[in-house]
Amino acid sequence: MNQLAHLHQQVELGLQELQLPNKPDNLYESIKYIIDLGGKRLRPVMVLLGNDVFGGQLNKALPAALSIELFHNFSLMHDDIMDNADLRRGKPSVHVQWNLPTAILGGDALLVVAYQQLMKSSQEHVVELLNLFNVTALEVCEGQQMDMNFEVQNDVSVADYLEMIRLKTAVLMGASFKMGAIIANASNFDADLMYQFGQDLGVAFQLKDDFLDCFGNPSFGKVIGGDILENKKTLMYLHAQHKGSQNQQEELAELANVSDAKTKIHSTLKLFEATGAKAAAENKMNEYYKKALANLNNLHLSDVHKETLGKFAESIWQRQK
Amino acid sequence: MNQLAHLHQQVELGLQELQLPNKPDNLYESIKYIIDLGGKRLRPVMVLLGNDVFGGQLNKALPAALSIELFHNFSLMHDDIMDNADLRRGKPSVHVQWNLPTAILGGDALLVVAYQQLMKSSQEHVVELLNLFNVTALEVCEGQQMDMNFEVQNDVSVADYLEMIRLKTAVLMGASFKMGAIIANASNFDADLMYQFGQDLGVAFQLKDDFLDCFGNPSFGKVIGGDILENKKTLMYLHAQHKGSQNQQEELAELANVSDAKTKIHSTLKLFEATGAKAAAENKMNEYYKKALANLNNLHLSDVHKETLGKFAESIWQRQK
Repeated sequence: MNQLAHLHQQVELGLQELQLPNKPDNLYESIKYIIDLGGKRLRPVMVLLGNDVFGGQLNKALPAALSIELFHNFSLMHDDIMDNADLRRGKPSVHVQWNLPTAILGGDALLVVAYQQLMKSSQEHVVELLNLFNVTALEVCEGQQMDMNFEVQNDVSVADYLEMIRLKTAVLMGASFKMGAIIANASNFDADLMYQFGQDLGVAFQLKDDFLDCFGNPSFGKVIGGDILENKKTLMYLHAQHKGSQNQQEELAELANVSDAKTKIHSTLKLFEATGAKAAAENKMNEYYKKALANLNNLHLSDVHKETLGKFAESIWQRQK
Repeated sequence: MNQLAHLHQQVELGLQELQLPNKPDNLYESIKYIIDLGGKRLRPVMVLLGNDVFGGQLNKALPAALSIELFHNFSLMHDDIMDNADLRRGKPSVHVQWNLPTAILGGDALLVVAYQQLMKSSQEHVVELLNLFNVTALEVCEGQQMDMNFEVQNDVSVADYLEMIRLKTAVLMGASFKMGAIIANASNFDADLMYQFGQDLGVAFQLKDDFLDCFGNPSFGKVIGGDILENKKTLMYLHAQHKGSQNQQEELAELANVSDAKTKIHSTLKLFEATGAKAAAENKMNEYYKKALANLNNLHLSDVHKETLGKFAESIWQRQK
């Protein structure tokens, strides 16, 4: 088994062994349900990997890794309510499977359980980890609030968008790598670089996610056009809105009201190509991916360990859906 | 100024001086809004009082006191969504003043801010305080979930109801007193007794709240019958349901569907008297109040300090609305 598969397995085992209270049934079943829906477990693997490359022991980093995954699932449970998302990984979301109160309370309880898990970290690091967790958790809330606000806001800039995805998605990846480094007693300099690595990778990751939603390959199982149908103000949308010709801008505005899905997606994609939005998005995501990798050069690590981190980044980057 | 007024003032000052981030505007304005709606600040005063009677310094207990009040407001913000409560202290609730996503995220962020505030406590106590906070926060979620579940559950017992209000309301009061005692370096024995004092007082407090909702004096500004109109399964309701005669039980069941508010309230109150539910509720709340006071006897405190705690309990107990 390769290293990443091993770390992933340790995360799954840790999640299965979580001891949760039993009552009320629906409260804790909703938590088990969302955890059992699975996922790539990227963030906890980042914690374990960040710890491993600095020579840390896996069992010392596992509580923080699980905590980060629990936090991530808390945010998914609440986001699904706000986004009116009825499905999560092909299954009913918690607020659909149960109801709104259970999804709110399940999320609240899951956030508390994430704190409890983080507090199982060794005494020596627990305060530093908690402080980082607190700051990051607030930023994730801020990012989601910005995302919500953008839905009814007409003056969103590309810079606003980049800041939103940094907060909503990227800081948690930065914090994951940094926590691993902290637990392995890496220097502040290296821990901060790991944060930067994760954060840049997180922005690249989200930009690519948006890109694949438009230009992914359906033969890899990617469903195309979800963001377009929701009138999401992605970087591509904002580029077309700001940089398109008068005609193109008007066409984009009119497309918001088109109800036929196929027409809407097809015409929007053509506009994204014609306005240079597609190329701009590719450039931007490549820029962040390179920025992420550049951080690795300055780490006080052997080339082998830098390569491990680089390969991990590449494995995320190469995904097709 | 008497001592309680002084502690209350310190809480208000502390809340005013809270440093919150500014952006996104609506996220943090929703938090300031609910804090500024005011309230009795009972729980933070309990922290400060629990600290003071054991000789602790006020400034050492203030972060925990503010944290508890922030946590309480987090739970109110989310509860108002679940309860469809449009008003909070006579003003629009957060989900009405803003919207559902802001009320969910505002609550989430407020919970994190409560953790940040608690972490300003001295290093020596912070882990113990956090552990107590975590357990208590989960219990409060469990209590609210039980309350939600009871709405659609037909087999709720009086014991279930008492357990629900213990979790939803009373444990936070227990934890408040205990945190104060911990920060003042009271013994575990005394800290646990303070918890018990607060918890019993909390159950008594909630039972009296339910009682006043039915049998309070409108001339004190109490609006009567809110719980009855919502078909709330209070102790009185459950007593009437379980202990009433066949006829009374049928009448109670039929009253659930009566739409005229005045008739519904009037008939239910009569039923509460006729079935002995009113008397049973009075007995139960007095029992918990006495139980609360009995804990004071065993504290390793001077009579003066026991009296201070007793007077505080009485001040809560004597309120008319």
